[in-house]
Amino acid sequence: MSRRQAETWPAGKARKRVIIEGVKPEIDGGRFPIKRTVGEKVSVEADIVTDGHEVIAAHLWYRREQDPDWQTTPMQPLVNDRWQGEFQVQEVGRSRYAIAAWVDHFRTWQRDLQKRVDAGQDVAIDLLIGAGFIEEVRARAPEPAARQLGEWADILRGKGSSLEEKLEAAQNSDLARLMGLYPDKHFISVYDRNLIVVVDPVKARFSAWYEMFPRSCTTEPGQHATFKDCEARLPYIAGMGFDVLYLPPIHPIGRTNRKGKNNNPVCGPDDLGSPWAIGAAEGGHKAVHPQLGTLEDFKQFVAKAREANLDVALDLAYQGSPDHPYVQEHPKWFRWRPDNTVQYAENPPKKYEDIYPFDFETEDWQDLWEEFKSVVLFWIEAGVRIFRVDNPHTKPFHFWEWLITEIKRDYPEVFFLAEAFTRPKVMYRLAKLGFSQSYNYFPWRNTKWEITQYLTELTRTEVREYFRANLWPNTPDILTEYLQFGGRPAFMIRLVLAATLGASYGIYGPAFELCESQPRDPGSEEYLNSEKYEIRNWDIKRPDSLKNFIARVNRIRRENPALQSSWNLHFYPIDNEQLICYARFSEDQANTILVVVNLDPHHTQGGWLELPLEELGLDPNQPYQVHDLLGEARFLWHGPRNFVELKPQEAPAYLFRIRRRVRTEKDFDYYL
Amino acid sequence: MSRRQAETWPAGKARKRVIIEGVKPEIDGGRFPIKRTVGEKVSVEADIVTDGHEVIAAHLWYRREQDPDWQTTPMQPLVNDRWQGEFQVQEVGRSRYAIAAWVDHFRTWQRDLQKRVDAGQDVAIDLLIGAGFIEEVRARAPEPAARQLGEWADILRGKGSSLEEKLEAAQNSDLARLMGLYPDKHFISVYDRNLIVVVDPVKARFSAWYEMFPRSCTTEPGQHATFKDCEARLPYIAGMGFDVLYLPPIHPIGRTNRKGKNNNPVCGPDDLGSPWAIGAAEGGHKAVHPQLGTLEDFKQFVAKAREANLDVALDLAYQGSPDHPYVQEHPKWFRWRPDNTVQYAENPPKKYEDIYPFDFETEDWQDLWEEFKSVVLFWIEAGVRIFRVDNPHTKPFHFWEWLITEIKRDYPEVFFLAEAFTRPKVMYRLAKLGFSQSYNYFPWRNTKWEITQYLTELTRTEVREYFRANLWPNTPDILTEYLQFGGRPAFMIRLVLAATLGASYGIYGPAFELCESQPRDPGSEEYLNSEKYEIRNWDIKRPDSLKNFIARVNRIRRENPALQSSWNLHFYPIDNEQLICYARFSEDQANTILVVVNLDPHHTQGGWLELPLEELGLDPNQPYQVHDLLGEARFLWHGPRNFVELKPQEAPAYLFRIRRRVRTEKDFDYYL
Repeated sequence: MSRRQAETWPAGKARKRVIIEGVKPEIDGGRFPIKRTVGEKVSVEADIVTDGHEVIAAHLWYRREQDPDWQTTPMQPLVNDRWQGEFQVQEVGRSRYAIAAWVDHFRTWQRDLQKRVDAGQDVAIDLLIGAGFIEEVRARAPEPAARQLGEWADILRGKGSSLEEKLEAAQNSDLARLMGLYPDKHFISVYDRNLIVVVDPVKARFSAWYEMFPRSCTTEPGQHATFKDCEARLPYIAGMGFDVLYLPPIHPIGRTNRKGKNNNPVCGPDDLGSPWAIGAAEGGHKAVHPQLGTLEDFKQFVAKAREANLDVALDLAYQGSPDHPYVQEHPKWFRWRPDNTVQYAENPPKKYEDIYPFDFETEDWQDLWEEFKSVVLFWIEAGVRIFRVDNPHTKPFHFWEWLITEIKRDYPEVFFLAEAFTRPKVMYRLAKLGFSQSYNYFPWRNTKWEITQYLTELTRTEVREYFRANLWPNTPDILTEYLQFGGRPAFMIRLVLAATLGASYGIYGPAFELCESQPRDPGSEEYLNSEKYEIRNWDIKRPDSLKNFIARVNRIRRENPALQSSWNLHFYPIDNEQLICYARFSEDQANTILVVVNLDPHHTQGGWLELPLEELGLDPNQPYQVHDLLGEARFLWHGPRNFVELKPQEAPAYLFRIRRRVRTEKDFDYYL
Repeated sequence: MSRRQAETWPAGKARKRVIIEGVKPEIDGGRFPIKRTVGEKVSVEADIVTDGHEVIAAHLWYRREQDPDWQTTPMQPLVNDRWQGEFQVQEVGRSRYAIAAWVDHFRTWQRDLQKRVDAGQDVAIDLLIGAGFIEEVRARAPEPAARQLGEWADILRGKGSSLEEKLEAAQNSDLARLMGLYPDKHFISVYDRNLIVVVDPVKARFSAWYEMFPRSCTTEPGQHATFKDCEARLPYIAGMGFDVLYLPPIHPIGRTNRKGKNNNPVCGPDDLGSPWAIGAAEGGHKAVHPQLGTLEDFKQFVAKAREANLDVALDLAYQGSPDHPYVQEHPKWFRWRPDNTVQYAENPPKKYEDIYPFDFETEDWQDLWEEFKSVVLFWIEAGVRIFRVDNPHTKPFHFWEWLITEIKRDYPEVFFLAEAFTRPKVMYRLAKLGFSQSYNYFPWRNTKWEITQYLTELTRTEVREYFRANLWPNTPDILTEYLQFGGRPAFMIRLVLAATLGASYGIYGPAFELCESQPRDPGSEEYLNSEKYEIRNWDIKRPDSLKNFIARVNRIRRENPALQSSWNLHFYPIDNEQLICYARFSEDQANTILVVVNLDPHHTQGGWLELPLEELGLDPNQPYQVHDLLGEARFLWHGPRNFVELKPQEAPAYLFRIRRRVRTEKDFDYYL
């Protein structure tokens, strides 16, 4: 008989009877990795079936990408052929995971033997069949397992043992365990589509960002601050409890077509220009703006910040001013117009003549990519570990995927935040290809319905496997209408929402804590006298500053594990459209924070909330205490329905720690 | 500068800026093909985005697998970066599809030029840029396009043309079309994950099956019928409007451990045994049972059936009796017990000693697979084009995938029906790997909720891309409780449901049309005196036979395109749990059938149904006619709410053809 045809099937696969499919998590068929941070779990599920009625064994395999050998943990059947297993990621870098499964003939035999015995059938032959299975495994097992298996086989076969002894041996759990250790690899199905988990540092999940223009860190009106001045500002920022300090570009600023104050197309002789117009005679993306100091000053600033538990995040803006050295050195990296000028940035009919975009379609793309990578390496060398990427959605997706993968291969602790305020699919794609954190639509989600819809999408769907939202109530580009018109309560409300709806958030200060709310024009989200174009002297000691409020919120975040992951957000009903209620849980459920926010910055609002007591781990027949960590008030509640009221001028939110009753009505678990 | 790093990225991909993802249909990341039948459309959707703000061009590519060149059709943007395109499949076999997309610089330039002009900007340089784009394309375009493009470029650049002429040329649609024909392949992103559509013959989608034991086709009590006798039965079957005639195995039946009547483990000397106990001294899977006739008789029967528009479907049961020649010729294909007997089929503690399963874990699997393929080829040679596969879920998935792919490569018109009544994920996997039709849970879905849930899953989710349900109210193994206790109305009800909920259905007759309802034991779904073990002499002329009713239903199916596809099923509310209401539409919406069935076989039921008039293409301000194709009654209805009543003893269902009013209240579209 010709074997031509059956040989069209991969011989190694033909006898692997178990099928593995429907694996989760798996992004786009394995095209992209999932994300975790150090210490988190990866729970993997799959549909696992075989033909026939035999028992299946299934194992989850995992290993760091650089390790040769898999670690393995058994998977458990759930319902309807669904299986689950999990592992914990221990360090930054890439790990792989896979699923292995096979028909477990020995356990099938054990199960069937019991049925035969129960039906009173003669099992003499069956015991010999079992001994045969053991012999098969013994032949490939190492010592001392092989010797032990031989002894078991002897008992099943032996004339010396009674039927009872044989049956007892057959069902022995040590024997079953031993048999499971050495499956015949010819029959093992392995699902190893490119399943990768990228493990980031904890700060990629749980972080509080503070954005600040370094040149404004001075107390002398109009004077350009230096990194030394910035050092003096560190205790203030760290004191509010932030742990990432993000600086807009610190490079030399172009002079050609420089923008004046309030984005004036004509600039005066003293105007400093936008830090995003990168590059001048003094250098480009690897240089420090001379008025800020030297590279050494910057390195010292980074070190001082780290002492205050502040990681400095740099801005990565791949664009140049017309004075950028690249224009002369690498004319091929730009698009040239027929009049022999470089094509400036534009969104017709708008023109941005102080900015030259790079031409990623250039034939010289390899040099361009390499140069941009060297920029990142340069600042890593200077101590930077976090990069906030400016407008990544205007540079090619493939470039980012390459760049981030390259950098993280050698520096897995480095991570990138995508500043892409654009269409949803573009934002998700950027996250999939490697950004560890992402800006998002939070600034414009203000109503209960908007917040509930959007945060549910981010935290309860597959999106959470790759997209980590960083929630910002304001940025130098975004002064929302809500903040313009809501007064100080609006800033408190948005701060609490940002800090408690997710695990990472950030503010642009001191504009935020000083409740800066004047737009450049009515209907605009631009700040009046924006720091993008001029130095601002902020009076950070103003008595109405929110700095103490922010410090308290950040301390609550640090002290409550429930607020440190974005995966555990549950919205609960409350019968007032201006009030929103949600709970956050720590992974072990030991810590629960119940948040109630008044979304109306102008009026007192009250309403009945309805809590799912079982989900909250509360006994419906016992009272429980809710302790407002913001205002320090404690309430004793009974049952699911309770009334709350919030006055925005005093405190627009409750951050309740839920305390379960332990022994008597006086014993709540905070005494423990 | 070292190029080592950037070279880690595939150079061919680096400058392709468009991203294609979220492609539908795509089964398990392209692991499995989708299915269509000849003449059907494939509508393809994808998320297509680029960095930046430029205009995208996207095309759907498709070709038969054996063709070297793609055919191409433009895709259209829907909303939120979703694009759609479609093509029609014209013949059986495998076709591939792919998506190609690129940044359309010329259309971007056209769009932006218009904005600049509208803003009153000087566009002299822009016109030169446009001429440059045209020159680029001209350089790679063939004649006469190249010459034409040159002329357009001259106009845009030319001193001889006025600004108005240049602007008019710039927006010329012929120019835009020409420019779109020759994109630079360096910048084209192609999504060509293994996207395949398997195109089956129309009968794989739309078919009415009749199952019959050939040995019972006699009028002489107890006499074993031959294929000649079966020929005489063809007009009866074709007269009822069936188009597939499925025969249980026609091979020699084993004698060892043969089962007696009613599955008696002891058989008498005259007992014929089960046709599924395949193989005896007279031969195995390639032989014809001598009492049925010769191979030539069978071939003639197949030919005669085809003349009556009946395709004969054979049973493919890969198992043997202890007397099968394979047992001696290929001992390696069976599992042997320590007592040197072959392991019979069992589901402990139950034993099926008349059946030997094959051991697909054998090292000799290649010969086994080849032999099973040769069985299929043998019967294809004899004229068979449809195979009903017995218990495919007890043989390995990989084997079926290989077998079906191999057979359909050379005989793309052949198709297979999976008889797998097992767990849902196993059934779906079998469908994915190649079965064209599948048995399913329809026999046990009786209530409105059950039917609505299950049929919605089958016809409105991704499942429909690969799983084609064949709905059977009964089989020789399945006499449901509903049929046992519901009397003749129950048979009519289940017939109408099977024939109108999907496009393919079947019955096991003459048991069905004669309303055979006696189970072997109370609580069992086995027939008393089952034909599986003995000859039954059916009185097909009995006056209470449903044959005329069935003939009418099948004629309605043939005359109404709405009933010929499974993709167009919509359930509508009706305020009585015993009444179910649904509509089916033809693809062009010209033909609409509204079905109302009384699920209660014992009592008259009435209720108000509520129709979405817009979905049905009806003017809410006009009356419309519903014409019951079963009972020939016509009703004039107004508005969405109408009352219906069904008496199960008379007619348990309405099959309304909806007729829209055309001109006057007397003119309904059936006059057209």
